[in-house]
Amino acid sequence: MKKVILLVTSLLLISLTVHSQEMRSGKVKLESATSDEAGLIKVSIMYPSGEGKTFDMEYYETLHMPMVAGFLGSNLVKYTIDKGIASGAPNQTPAYVAIGKFFVKSLADYQAAIAPNRDAIRADFPKYTNIAPVILISEVVK
Amino acid sequence: MKKVILLVTSLLLISLTVHSQEMRSGKVKLESATSDEAGLIKVSIMYPSGEGKTFDMEYYETLHMPMVAGFLGSNLVKYTIDKGIASGAPNQTPAYVAIGKFFVKSLADYQAAIAPNRDAIRADFPKYTNIAPVILISEVVK
Repeated sequence: MKKVILLVTSLLLISLTVHSQEMRSGKVKLESATSDEAGLIKVSIMYPSGEGKTFDMEYYETLHMPMVAGFLGSNLVKYTIDKGIASGAPNQTPAYVAIGKFFVKSLADYQAAIAPNRDAIRADFPKYTNIAPVILISEVVK
Repeated sequence: MKKVILLVTSLLLISLTVHSQEMRSGKVKLESATSDEAGLIKVSIMYPSGEGKTFDMEYYETLHMPMVAGFLGSNLVKYTIDKGIASGAPNQTPAYVAIGKFFVKSLADYQAAIAPNRDAIRADFPKYTNIAPVILISEVVK
């Protein structure tokens, strides 16, 4: 009988140990979730604000960005859309009305995917904005 | 004796059940990590490029950003750092050398936390750059 108790107790201890190790590694994963982007390439399409500038956020969010995202395939990790609401100083217009971002693994693959679709992308611009966007390619450091 | 075995076995089962539930909730957190940002406020500190402009990325990453992040407490969801590497056109300098971003839940709380520390933050600027940053406050749409 003592052997059985010993066996079951051992199993319990093993289970708890494995559990605690997995929790620890789980915690590591959760903590690194925010820095999973490090090393990725970020393509930012920034729409500067200005007199008479217009931007249809709904069209951009529901049609334009999903269309471009569709061209990128598995190279695309995620994309985000920001709406400018204020600048650093009070009563100053935000520098950008909107910013769309594609997080990709490879810049070369991004460029290769966009090149044959450039006309389709440009033809879509006037449907939601009269702003010529500024493009910034950056590397996620952290 | 049987009671002891039953008790230990029950403990083992309870432990395994709790374990599996925690693993499942851990997974849910990981899956939602990329879309958790919608609705958050993003404060972008953008450092424009230019003739004679300098920027010490290591100081920025290891000292300046962690210092500012430390002022923000639980309002801060995460922060990121990007290094500009190219523009949309070939052979054109990227518009920004670096961009730091704070993802916060409340803009008012961000401003309240920064106000009493503004002098300390500004005094740190010359230690890593001679660029006056452009600040953009945006809302994460997607």
